[in-house]
Amino acid sequence: MASVALVQGASRGLGLEFCRNILINKATGAVIATCRNPAKATELMSLASQHPGKVTVLKLDVTREDDIKDAADHVKRVFGKLDLIINSSAMLHPSGKGETSLRDVSAQGIISTLTTNTVGPLVMAKYFAPLLQKGSGAFGRQPPEKARQHSGIIVNITAKVGSIGDNDLGGWYSYRMSKAALNMATRNLSIELGRSRPLVLCVSVHPGTVNTDLSRPYHRNVPKDKLFSPAHSVQCLMNIVDSLNVDKTGKAYSWDGSELPW
Amino acid sequence: MASVALVQGASRGLGLEFCRNILINKATGAVIATCRNPAKATELMSLASQHPGKVTVLKLDVTREDDIKDAADHVKRVFGKLDLIINSSAMLHPSGKGETSLRDVSAQGIISTLTTNTVGPLVMAKYFAPLLQKGSGAFGRQPPEKARQHSGIIVNITAKVGSIGDNDLGGWYSYRMSKAALNMATRNLSIELGRSRPLVLCVSVHPGTVNTDLSRPYHRNVPKDKLFSPAHSVQCLMNIVDSLNVDKTGKAYSWDGSELPW
Repeated sequence: MASVALVQGASRGLGLEFCRNILINKATGAVIATCRNPAKATELMSLASQHPGKVTVLKLDVTREDDIKDAADHVKRVFGKLDLIINSSAMLHPSGKGETSLRDVSAQGIISTLTTNTVGPLVMAKYFAPLLQKGSGAFGRQPPEKARQHSGIIVNITAKVGSIGDNDLGGWYSYRMSKAALNMATRNLSIELGRSRPLVLCVSVHPGTVNTDLSRPYHRNVPKDKLFSPAHSVQCLMNIVDSLNVDKTGKAYSWDGSELPW
Repeated sequence: MASVALVQGASRGLGLEFCRNILINKATGAVIATCRNPAKATELMSLASQHPGKVTVLKLDVTREDDIKDAADHVKRVFGKLDLIINSSAMLHPSGKGETSLRDVSAQGIISTLTTNTVGPLVMAKYFAPLLQKGSGAFGRQPPEKARQHSGIIVNITAKVGSIGDNDLGGWYSYRMSKAALNMATRNLSIELGRSRPLVLCVSVHPGTVNTDLSRPYHRNVPKDKLFSPAHSVQCLMNIVDSLNVDKTGKAYSWDGSELPW
């Protein structure tokens, strides 16, 4: 059966690029692209029109549990399965800038960031896991001469600054905390969804510093060769996805395939 | 100057026991005990009456930033400094039971847990850090022949199940994620507050499985010698606090003093 991938947060940045990459490399498959406001997602709509019949755009605000449930119901009805979810939407902070010190910290700022970056991907897993368990394992690496070992994959976009052990600089409280908690969700999901046969895999991946709206205020501090285009970053991350198997679930990987410490 | 310690979440469980321990072992010092509803905190009020003039009980709901600010203003006015904060209040989940599987996960349940367990301690740090920077370093270990190296200490109560690397069992999504994010806050605070001289130290500590309301639904699964009384757990944790110095900040410690992986 042809592959079915869902990209959450697909209107721009990495999410849009994941859609483009998958449409090119899995030409026979379907892409479900979710975003908060499809009417304003002009780039996504343009991409969809270039691949007629391949892209389903669904309205989904990851902070609204009802939206997630409705999207899962739709995918179940139309496709009956799912092979890959990429949770892409994230914010640095509602202000657009990470906190440089405690003075910038506010309860509401942290809670908003956690709600989008952390709670959203976990609630996605809640509603889509049954569809991933019915997946055909079209992404990742299956053993050549054995039965399918995994049916689906969840990819959560984490960040190097979400590694507690790697943190020597401080700052960016909300974003760092949201990604550390997301890494715990990844680990927990890999355990619970690792009990079914075939398994659903779950990993966190770090895209590098990418030329997107999220990191735009910080680009001038990044050496040119360290600021990736979305296309380059996504190709690196899809290489990781292509290499995943049951031995690689429950971990965090950087764009170059190296494992990140928690 | 006599020590000033603040225990947040002091009406019962570990928090109440921290107050009792400090009142006995720092007999000349002051304890500020905060809780959501002082009028109902009968055990805390009874303890306060046994130590006349030593205990200040303040109303503080850790989910309300205004409460935290008001308490910090009060401590500044009356004491002018702070030597130790212990962030003790926490919940497993609003239902009282950790999620056993994804089916039990809800956005609202995670957000409530994160708000109390994670956001609360960070917002406490925001408002109390200036007072800890004026502390006299009455807790922890100072070098015998040098100037004071630290002025104050922040202790966040974490949990072994909040360690991502140690997680082999899964479940308890909200609680695990809240403690992983809290560990990131600890690490970040240790860096930012480690830049002042003298420093403010910040650590996470794991109390073991303690006979409190939080873990009550699970006590029958715990071998008797692994279920600690609050008094025993708090004595172990205060031994850790007593041993802290600038080399030990920014880490997570178990009740026996061993370091926990992130």
